Amino acid sequence: MVLRQDDDVLAHVENLAKTENIPSASFTGIGFASEVTFGFYDFKAKKFNPETFKKVEMGSLTGSVAWNEKGPSIHLHGIATDDQFKAVGGHILSLRVGTGSMEIYVAVNDEKLERKIEQPLNANVLQINCSQ
Amino acid sequence: MVLRQDDDVLAHVENLAKTENIPSASFTGIGFASEVTFGFYDFKAKKFNPETFKKVEMGSLTGSVAWNEKGPSIHLHGIATDDQFKAVGGHILSLRVGTGSMEIYVAVNDEKLERKIEQPLNANVLQINCSQ
Amino acid sequence: MVLRQDDDVLAHVENLAKTENIPSASFTGIGFASEVTFGFYDFKAKKFNPETFKKVEMGSLTGSVAWNEKGPSIHLHGIATDDQFKAVGGHILSLRVGTGSMEIYVAVNDEKLERKIEQPLNANVLQINCSQ
Repeated sequence: MVLRQDDDVLAHVENLAKTENIPSASFTGIGFASEVTFGFYDFKAKKFNPETFKKVEMGSLTGSVAWNEKGPSIHLHGIATDDQFKAVGGHILSLRVGTGSMEIYVAVNDEKLERKIEQPLNANVLQINCSQ
Repeated sequence: MVLRQDDDVLAHVENLAKTENIPSASFTGIGFASEVTFGFYDFKAKKFNPETFKKVEMGSLTGSVAWNEKGPSIHLHGIATDDQFKAVGGHILSLRVGTGSMEIYVAVNDEKLERKIEQPLNANVLQINCSQ
Repeated sequence: MVLRQDDDVLAHVENLAKTENIPSASFTGIGFASEVTFGFYDFKAKKFNPETFKKVEMGSLTGSVAWNEKGPSIHLHGIATDDQFKAVGGHILSLRVGTGSMEIYVAVNDEKLERKIEQPLNANVLQINCSQ
């Protein structure tokens, strides 16, 4: 999948999962971002503390596609690098393509996978057996 | 493969290789680590200088499964990011899952691959033809 | 693919694409680099501002193989980490294997993909439909 300037990466991967009826998938990717928002989970407040970085290369994107009761559920981490090549990263809350493009490489699996919110952490966890 | 809190990632990937009799594989992954120890190889001392980072997101994990005379041999690199989104990384000596989970996406290959210790570097090198 | 000391990674992936007649592929990788040159694109000058880092672990490599009118076209991003585990990264202009080895994990696709230079950015963009 190749995304273009201003595309919302999470929305496009969700849409791909729906239109192609992908049971589950893992993916990697690279490209240039106009902005990416990472969130670091605060386990006491049970919410992500966000920070946004603009005009950065995505040095790596690694994620997965599964499903919850509402539809496709995307989990995506990444490392962003700036014009000084300094790296920041983590759990991606939102990602928008910058000038140029973003390439996403999707490996589709045959088995349908689900994510469920687990307490007490409020974490959205992929539901498969540990040995799979 | 989805690992849970306190799981030892290298041990679980090794165990997966044994129980599923995986000839060889490459894998990627993401998740939250209670602690990760990276090692930078000192080519004079022929040993890794280790450093441990705690409560970090694994922004990326990239590795491979092969075999040596003792059993499965895992080679794993990764990038970890902290609550300020700062990135560190390198060769992973040990990795333990934190609160939440760790997702590992494994691509199995049909061909059995081996790793051998090569001198003078004492490096543990994957044994396949350069053009493969 | 396992590359050895002093190997030029981009040249070897290009050569693999030619000798194996790979229609297109995505790949990941890890290993030790004698030197890697990242470039951050200056959209006004339409050129990459380069910086070279020596004796670093490649904590992640993520890329793709497509074709242009001249032959294989490789797009590669990566994150490099030094002996203090500090991470830098971005778009890779050149990468040479250091002491030890570099492992590249290639996932070949059946469909031939092309890259074309697009104006006004002068960007070398993978040509596939957004929904693929």
